[in-house]
Amino acid sequence: MGNMVLVGMTCGSESDLTKMKEAAEVLEQFGVAYELVVASAHRAPTLVHEWASGAADRGLEVIIAGAGMAAALPGVVAASTPLPVIGVPLKGSSPLEGVDALYSIVQMPPGVPVATVAIDGARNAAYLAVAILGVGRPEFRQKMVQHKTELERKAREAYTRSAQG
Amino acid sequence: MGNMVLVGMTCGSESDLTKMKEAAEVLEQFGVAYELVVASAHRAPTLVHEWASGAADRGLEVIIAGAGMAAALPGVVAASTPLPVIGVPLKGSSPLEGVDALYSIVQMPPGVPVATVAIDGARNAAYLAVAILGVGRPEFRQKMVQHKTELERKAREAYTRSAQG
Amino acid sequence: MGNMVLVGMTCGSESDLTKMKEAAEVLEQFGVAYELVVASAHRAPTLVHEWASGAADRGLEVIIAGAGMAAALPGVVAASTPLPVIGVPLKGSSPLEGVDALYSIVQMPPGVPVATVAIDGARNAAYLAVAILGVGRPEFRQKMVQHKTELERKAREAYTRSAQG
Amino acid sequence: MGNMVLVGMTCGSESDLTKMKEAAEVLEQFGVAYELVVASAHRAPTLVHEWASGAADRGLEVIIAGAGMAAALPGVVAASTPLPVIGVPLKGSSPLEGVDALYSIVQMPPGVPVATVAIDGARNAAYLAVAILGVGRPEFRQKMVQHKTELERKAREAYTRSAQG
Amino acid sequence: MGNMVLVGMTCGSESDLTKMKEAAEVLEQFGVAYELVVASAHRAPTLVHEWASGAADRGLEVIIAGAGMAAALPGVVAASTPLPVIGVPLKGSSPLEGVDALYSIVQMPPGVPVATVAIDGARNAAYLAVAILGVGRPEFRQKMVQHKTELERKAREAYTRSAQG
Amino acid sequence: MGNMVLVGMTCGSESDLTKMKEAAEVLEQFGVAYELVVASAHRAPTLVHEWASGAADRGLEVIIAGAGMAAALPGVVAASTPLPVIGVPLKGSSPLEGVDALYSIVQMPPGVPVATVAIDGARNAAYLAVAILGVGRPEFRQKMVQHKTELERKAREAYTRSAQG
Amino acid sequence: MGNMVLVGMTCGSESDLTKMKEAAEVLEQFGVAYELVVASAHRAPTLVHEWASGAADRGLEVIIAGAGMAAALPGVVAASTPLPVIGVPLKGSSPLEGVDALYSIVQMPPGVPVATVAIDGARNAAYLAVAILGVGRPEFRQKMVQHKTELERKAREAYTRSAQG
Amino acid sequence: MGNMVLVGMTCGSESDLTKMKEAAEVLEQFGVAYELVVASAHRAPTLVHEWASGAADRGLEVIIAGAGMAAALPGVVAASTPLPVIGVPLKGSSPLEGVDALYSIVQMPPGVPVATVAIDGARNAAYLAVAILGVGRPEFRQKMVQHKTELERKAREAYTRSAQG
Repeated sequence: MGNMVLVGMTCGSESDLTKMKEAAEVLEQFGVAYELVVASAHRAPTLVHEWASGAADRGLEVIIAGAGMAAALPGVVAASTPLPVIGVPLKGSSPLEGVDALYSIVQMPPGVPVATVAIDGARNAAYLAVAILGVGRPEFRQKMVQHKTELERKAREAYTRSAQG
Repeated sequence: MGNMVLVGMTCGSESDLTKMKEAAEVLEQFGVAYELVVASAHRAPTLVHEWASGAADRGLEVIIAGAGMAAALPGVVAASTPLPVIGVPLKGSSPLEGVDALYSIVQMPPGVPVATVAIDGARNAAYLAVAILGVGRPEFRQKMVQHKTELERKAREAYTRSAQG
Repeated sequence: MGNMVLVGMTCGSESDLTKMKEAAEVLEQFGVAYELVVASAHRAPTLVHEWASGAADRGLEVIIAGAGMAAALPGVVAASTPLPVIGVPLKGSSPLEGVDALYSIVQMPPGVPVATVAIDGARNAAYLAVAILGVGRPEFRQKMVQHKTELERKAREAYTRSAQG
Repeated sequence: MGNMVLVGMTCGSESDLTKMKEAAEVLEQFGVAYELVVASAHRAPTLVHEWASGAADRGLEVIIAGAGMAAALPGVVAASTPLPVIGVPLKGSSPLEGVDALYSIVQMPPGVPVATVAIDGARNAAYLAVAILGVGRPEFRQKMVQHKTELERKAREAYTRSAQG
Repeated sequence: MGNMVLVGMTCGSESDLTKMKEAAEVLEQFGVAYELVVASAHRAPTLVHEWASGAADRGLEVIIAGAGMAAALPGVVAASTPLPVIGVPLKGSSPLEGVDALYSIVQMPPGVPVATVAIDGARNAAYLAVAILGVGRPEFRQKMVQHKTELERKAREAYTRSAQG
Repeated sequence: MGNMVLVGMTCGSESDLTKMKEAAEVLEQFGVAYELVVASAHRAPTLVHEWASGAADRGLEVIIAGAGMAAALPGVVAASTPLPVIGVPLKGSSPLEGVDALYSIVQMPPGVPVATVAIDGARNAAYLAVAILGVGRPEFRQKMVQHKTELERKAREAYTRSAQG
Repeated sequence: MGNMVLVGMTCGSESDLTKMKEAAEVLEQFGVAYELVVASAHRAPTLVHEWASGAADRGLEVIIAGAGMAAALPGVVAASTPLPVIGVPLKGSSPLEGVDALYSIVQMPPGVPVATVAIDGARNAAYLAVAILGVGRPEFRQKMVQHKTELERKAREAYTRSAQG
Repeated sequence: MGNMVLVGMTCGSESDLTKMKEAAEVLEQFGVAYELVVASAHRAPTLVHEWASGAADRGLEVIIAGAGMAAALPGVVAASTPLPVIGVPLKGSSPLEGVDALYSIVQMPPGVPVATVAIDGARNAAYLAVAILGVGRPEFRQKMVQHKTELERKAREAYTRSAQG
């Protein structure tokens, strides 16, 4: 089952790939197969629609979409699929530091939500995707439990290190 | 020629129509025929694509798109047409007072501009549309000249009133 | 299965319940059983921890947490469960219009994401919850497909109405 | 016709020229002749008025004005011409990162619109100018169609590259 | 000398007059004669230029200019006169609550300052004008001394009232 | 008494320690013993609760908590202790420059305050802690008096240096 | 001891008294005697200095200062006393909704902190004052413990009410 | 007369001197004698009061005060003098990029204005001071006329250079 592609990732331009690969690394750590494609909502709208509207039939379960500036991609993807869509506002080189992308992604109208994470929060998008996969698949639920345990273990180690000065 | 529909107007929901009709009134004053349709980029993406990608062939010359919150509509329309697209950020009932819509509309990526006007600036979208129509049609250029003259005349009257005030 | 409680909803104070009940209505339309409790991260932190850390064992699959101002609740819940957590920034009566809650919820550190929706976007939190439930349960996937179809049908009707003037 | 100057470009200071030349490059790719002058609304107001009020008579069809900080230039130019005016908010070295210029340009009062593009979006100003020129000139409409086709072709290539990993 | 008009006041539209009259009241309390005219930088630019460039010759010593949204008026006036120009950002009905006007007025480029007061701070513009008139005229300096003394007297009375509960 | 640990300091991650050590230096200058531990509210919530709820019994009198982004730590600590809690919003590498942390810390709901200092204001957190310790301990009150005297002395020296050019 | 005045409260104008009295009510609930005076930093600076610099000698232990707009009062008070100073940013009628006051109060320079609470957070200023009084006085520490217990008890009641639907 | 000190300049810390010296250079170009002292409103409040309240008696006519963060200095100076006070918000190293200082300076309450210039606009503060000096002294009025003429001459030269490509 780990070999089936469960997460579809997309971003608006090749310059966004560096950030999105941070999400990819997290997914690999969890043994989640994914696809990652560049597909611009503003330059190739029909391509985005094809990719997103076919996502569920290809067996994808969750989508992660990252975009900067007037970041329409996550919302446009969400418009074309019944799958949960996670949006990552990308800071990129925008003078607005990603606030433009954050507002463009999180402020979706009723009926078509995008699950938004922090600006440049690609890694968290991946963790969220795994948590969502855990809804239907006990092995991912279990992995999230382990992830939280591991986070706490490391945090307690940092506590101990700091307490020892 | 005044009877040919030259301006296509669209907005994301029926609640936006009140604002868009302010633009319609201005167009009517200039004798510009228009169409005005509700077409949500997030609820009916293929409808938006059909409408926008066919706009030039229907004889439209300029498009005005108004939207609030994560206002994807103007950018999605611009992605599907070679016509100039004017975007109107709508304040609506967003707690962000239209700044979300402004950023979502104005911060377009290279290659796909949207000509953005002020928040709730639907009337200015119409004036801008007439100025753009003036590029190819001397009668609209002439009407813009008259419009500016009239603006200045009224402004000078207000000056005189206030100076006597 | 529709009778099993799958979604846990919580908010920081009783004054938030009005907004959260918008989410409840949407869940009811989808036939999703839920629990809805008031549990303040700043006034009753151990209660929140108990509720959140036991959520998975009670059979919950998704959590929705709404909060205003320094909205710690969604993040604190996310810290205590392997389930996906959806955060709703509530405007309430904050002079900052909900931007404080938005930043407090969406800007989570790596490892502990919160799936953030729009300010006061409680209804969208519910739609997102159903989409997430669809990952493991075909009947909810199917309901999301119907939801999207219905959204598009209504949007096309609004288009037709508007096109007829 | 390509030799006739159709686009007038102006900016407030010589330090803005680097950004404006990005627009010039795009215009050159489209074979659009332009003039580009430095004319400060705050240091040489009558010069700006002369330049702008004579623009239509010189045969210009579209104006692009870039400015930073309290960016009055685009609005002042728009006040003096019936031509469509495109405003480019320039970030420059303002601590406000161009938000000051954005607000100063986009928030025009009724009657005198400025078609605003993204902060530092000079290239998009040029694309918008070509789209506007397409209203009266089929060869520019055709060039915009080719531009969109080319954008999509490149976007699909990026998609393919990324899909191949 | 009190009968000579020393302060010129202007604002962009008749709807701004209510705010500007708050400044007028203060000037009257100080016995400063003023003129107050409506003159839009975006609708009647040459009128503004005429008014501002002739201000010094008419004997004016200080100018107060109030404007909202893309508030170009104070800067445009400052460009046309050697007199000190005080700018009042007006909130008006802008969704941006006057921040647009504030940035448009205060962020002037080097060489052409505008002395900016608070959003809707028309009264303070008048106090500032009197302080400036005090530079050349001892009677206004004296009036400012009395004004400060009076402010402190009233503040001490409020202190006493509050201390007595 | 100087050897008893009176101030507890905590921050969310080891990368925050550099900033927190600025506070530690100030405390050392005042001869205030402190503990400094890393304890993440989002990764190790029970650890934070244990540390904070036991703080008063360990003899701590004041707590300083620094955090960035969705900075829940100060509020969560405040929820678990009757001691005064000082919050330091940390800029870290957040694209929002610490405004996210500021809003997350300062906008606490009624009943559970956090004494917030400037973004990256760790040193001021320490000065505030000493002032608070001065409430119960005359020697710290005295040290604050000396601190203020010293600040003024240095400020007067800077004045003299500058006045001498 | 409860009869000795321990908390000094001040605000910039009589219109701020309504908000400050919310703090007064909380102090009364805790049996903390206070003084509350109106003292404007901008209208009666020497009065403020006298009041603040004598505060410690009058036996005050904590100061609460509320102010709106360019809220200098809390910082100016902090400059004149070794006591801990709590600042309350007041929204008042500022178009900036209290963000101006928040920034003016929280962003203090090194050496002179102000313990800032939420915009219009006067009640929290009082709770914080009691927590600070608890540093030197076990009876107030005990009252804060009871306050927290009571907060949690009410929060658990709200939980139970909500859980019962 | 040029030898008499007419402008008093102050700033909050020695690190602000670099910016303030930009103003000094402009004053020197205009032959305006000035004093420049470091005087912190938060570290040496009585020094500031002494300096400001004696300014008029020392023969100063205009004051320029620069400050960063919670920039109380300009307002505190304005509280202590009948002279016009120009405030310069300094960006310094504040994460808020000078917006904190801008709000702290420009949002003054009624009765006590500060003439605010752009963030880091020290040079403009000097130009404004000269314009104000021109109210009472024809030679400075004349110098401002020359300054404007020179600005326009240089702007026209830049125009010509750019027009020649």
